Amino acid sequence: MNVKLKIALAQLNFTVGDISRNSKKIIRAIQYAKNKLHADLVVFPELALTGYPPEDLLLRPQFIADAENALKKIQKYSADIHVILGCPTKPKDTCFNSAICLYREKQLACYHKQKLPNYSVFDEKRYFSSGTKPVVLSIKGFQIALAICEDVWFEDVAKQAKKAGAECILAINASPFSDKKFARRKEQLEQRIKKINIPIFYLNLIGGQDELLFDGQSFVMDSRRRIVAQAKAFEEDWLTVEIDQNKKVIPKPLALPLSPMESLYRALVLGVKDYVQKNQFSHVFIGLSGGIDSALTLAIATDALGAKNVTAVIMPSPFTASMSVDDAISLSKALHVVYQIIPIHDIFETSLKTLHPVFSGLPEDITEENLQSRIRCNLLMALANKTNGLMLSTSNKSEIAVGYTTLYGDMSGAFCVLKDLYKTQVYALSNYRNQISAVIPQRIIDRPPSAELAFDQTDQDTLPPYEILDKILYRFVEGNQSAALISKTLHLSIALVRKVIAMVKRSEYKRHQAPPGPRLTERGFDKDWRYPIVDRYW
Amino acid sequence: MNVKLKIALAQLNFTVGDISRNSKKIIRAIQYAKNKLHADLVVFPELALTGYPPEDLLLRPQFIADAENALKKIQKYSADIHVILGCPTKPKDTCFNSAICLYREKQLACYHKQKLPNYSVFDEKRYFSSGTKPVVLSIKGFQIALAICEDVWFEDVAKQAKKAGAECILAINASPFSDKKFARRKEQLEQRIKKINIPIFYLNLIGGQDELLFDGQSFVMDSRRRIVAQAKAFEEDWLTVEIDQNKKVIPKPLALPLSPMESLYRALVLGVKDYVQKNQFSHVFIGLSGGIDSALTLAIATDALGAKNVTAVIMPSPFTASMSVDDAISLSKALHVVYQIIPIHDIFETSLKTLHPVFSGLPEDITEENLQSRIRCNLLMALANKTNGLMLSTSNKSEIAVGYTTLYGDMSGAFCVLKDLYKTQVYALSNYRNQISAVIPQRIIDRPPSAELAFDQTDQDTLPPYEILDKILYRFVEGNQSAALISKTLHLSIALVRKVIAMVKRSEYKRHQAPPGPRLTERGFDKDWRYPIVDRYW
Repeated sequence: MNVKLKIALAQLNFTVGDISRNSKKIIRAIQYAKNKLHADLVVFPELALTGYPPEDLLLRPQFIADAENALKKIQKYSADIHVILGCPTKPKDTCFNSAICLYREKQLACYHKQKLPNYSVFDEKRYFSSGTKPVVLSIKGFQIALAICEDVWFEDVAKQAKKAGAECILAINASPFSDKKFARRKEQLEQRIKKINIPIFYLNLIGGQDELLFDGQSFVMDSRRRIVAQAKAFEEDWLTVEIDQNKKVIPKPLALPLSPMESLYRALVLGVKDYVQKNQFSHVFIGLSGGIDSALTLAIATDALGAKNVTAVIMPSPFTASMSVDDAISLSKALHVVYQIIPIHDIFETSLKTLHPVFSGLPEDITEENLQSRIRCNLLMALANKTNGLMLSTSNKSEIAVGYTTLYGDMSGAFCVLKDLYKTQVYALSNYRNQISAVIPQRIIDRPPSAELAFDQTDQDTLPPYEILDKILYRFVEGNQSAALISKTLHLSIALVRKVIAMVKRSEYKRHQAPPGPRLTERGFDKDWRYPIVDRYW
Repeated sequence: MNVKLKIALAQLNFTVGDISRNSKKIIRAIQYAKNKLHADLVVFPELALTGYPPEDLLLRPQFIADAENALKKIQKYSADIHVILGCPTKPKDTCFNSAICLYREKQLACYHKQKLPNYSVFDEKRYFSSGTKPVVLSIKGFQIALAICEDVWFEDVAKQAKKAGAECILAINASPFSDKKFARRKEQLEQRIKKINIPIFYLNLIGGQDELLFDGQSFVMDSRRRIVAQAKAFEEDWLTVEIDQNKKVIPKPLALPLSPMESLYRALVLGVKDYVQKNQFSHVFIGLSGGIDSALTLAIATDALGAKNVTAVIMPSPFTASMSVDDAISLSKALHVVYQIIPIHDIFETSLKTLHPVFSGLPEDITEENLQSRIRCNLLMALANKTNGLMLSTSNKSEIAVGYTTLYGDMSGAFCVLKDLYKTQVYALSNYRNQISAVIPQRIIDRPPSAELAFDQTDQDTLPPYEILDKILYRFVEGNQSAALISKTLHLSIALVRKVIAMVKRSEYKRHQAPPGPRLTERGFDKDWRYPIVDRYW
């Protein structure tokens, strides 16, 4: 007899906290897997029922109780299909990150995650206890071990599964995207399979959750360490894979991998779409300066939400070049986005007049620059408040790192689209976007960057060239390197490196009040950057 | 022979990251303990060398190396006194939270913290591995076990020490203040000593670090579970205690305990002082509305920094009652604080005029209220930027919980003094401050609270009375209780409770961008409140 096992991996997008809608989506997916895909087994990602990561919701007893009740309802749909579902469980007083196997309307098995990540963006030891035992399911004669995310990064868990009789491992994940992440997952699985010689089914979540992006890209690696099936990146997908009677995975055709730029761009589009829509908003406002950061932000937001859900707001000050306004208009037109021009001259003048009695005698300085930036923030927030929209921030990672952005000014917004994208990458990604269709005027890309908050100002009056700055920042932020090491490796003066680091340190208070933004690297400035503000280590 | 052991507990204030100055302070303290106090043993708090908590500084290899180098310098001052010092260590590739014993210019022993807190405000498992072994020092024939903070909250560690021969336990701590904390520490030590019947010396850190406050209040509990010596609260102090040849602690006179209000007030004064000064600022600006929150904030800031370092800024709008301005002036005068009056009418008018073309046709709503609040923020920030000062925020915990505060408006500032103080406590604490000297005009306390951003507005147009609101919030925020449970316990309609919870949930995005503020309760809105923004659990 030719027995095969058909496994349907449901690479779906869930919303944190929305147990009710997530449950309905899971039930629909079970029915689809059973009736349309004719699968023996349908699998959902890590903590699919609650969304990932639920953070301090997990400390609320009612939240866990609600998840457990939802699980009982879902159970009823498992009459003739095996279901593997990620959800928190709390037998007695201990909370686990679990994978439940449902079958014949019962809970057949419950696996508790053994390795709890508590580094980078992860805080799982805040919430969960570690499981200790393997779970191997026998389905149609196939022996399948369960694993949850971090588990497959450790040899001991893989060996434990193999020892317990596993013929393959089914790993459910909520593995956040970063530019290097897919390669790392692949490498980890290769190392595991080298030792245990059985296939691993790697199902990943897809969707944006605050700053975290889950890229999907679920895949199956066979016992010879070849990727034999792969789901789409950055969108929902079903990956249906069969194992034959020899316990071999039957290969499926693979799509071409994404280029690094395509990957970043699609990550950002997904991040903006999910942040806005999962927060139940639809419309966003973006201040267009005529510079490249707001130009790229506008393009991403338009691709994410559609042109009709985006309003560009052009707010020239006395220091704004007319070509900046022209370019901002051209860009809006190219993207078919409505734009509004609201000059800030009058408010700026009135503010200076109001402050004159208290400022009198003091020279002009950065205060007057910040003032303009904050007036723009106030106008954008007024538009957003009046129409129930969101304001997007346009600061990039380089600026946020060194504090070259105004707190309560251009740094502000509901979501900071380029928060984890260095300025040099902003250029590269703008060029990438223009290859799809030329929307960003070339002059925006070619002009020397300037905040245009004072006469004849350019960023390089204050900062080293971005090619150099970004290299220093990368090593300091993502590599935890010391000034001495950076200076030596990059052949840069120690004084320059120290100056940049001092700017990073001095602006910690700004980052503390920054909006979240989609995480693209191994170290963004949200959950994975936890620096004290009072910090005298320079 | 009458042998005694003299232990000097150095309850001192250290600064995170400032290894160099912390080292010098430690060396001076060793010399003082030796030459002036004639101590056999001088003890410093948990991670005294680096300050606590160093957070992601611990991920920088150079930071650990710098701490280890500093330790070698300090070692030289241990020729004829035992020194116990908290500092991070990294033998091989594992980082520990350690207590080092120095003597005769050498490292005599190194204890690694065994219980690593990873809940509430703590993330120690992000940085440290757990030690497993007890360390018992023999000094002048006395057997002393070392423990670090969380260790003494567990029976197994206490028993392990006793089993290893300890005649007393020396626990070094960085235990953050909360209104219930001292009682909890006392209770924990009673439980330990009940089992092991030996005294515990509990040395705590003192000082403010971002939102965390360390209250000192170091104490010694003898084998009969009596507190026999205690250091001051909220200030540096030396607690020098002797053990006699029978291993009994020789009691010292105890000061009267602080009242709850005195404790909160002194906590806030310390928090403001340390945040401002450790960040190398001296001057603060506070927007005075004539309401009670800004009044209390001004009093605290003045008590913390001195009147000459505080500027009150009164910014009336068209909706500000003249008595608000009068009261704000009276308050400033009572505190001898310079005040400036900067009306915002003109900027507000100009802003409305500027927005008119895009707003035309839309009715007035909360947008116009936020606009005023943000204009004030912009003016205060301009003053702070121009003079290198800090702006303090005046929002309280009740407002921040339900989002009754304007993002980029009155919520803003470098430090939010009342962030963890409910509105009902703001009244109580204002009355307490007026008992010391009557500085807050009685009318400010007696008037119905109002944001004065629209005609005839009071807080109770939007919110339930604060006596009720605060009770709901306390149970939801600090107790993790469900709407059903709160409604039942407080005999309030479920609709009202749900309305309040919905306000809390809807304003998560604001708290995400809020300034830090001193933590006073078991759950503040900084490190111990980690809620997703995208969160559909209502």
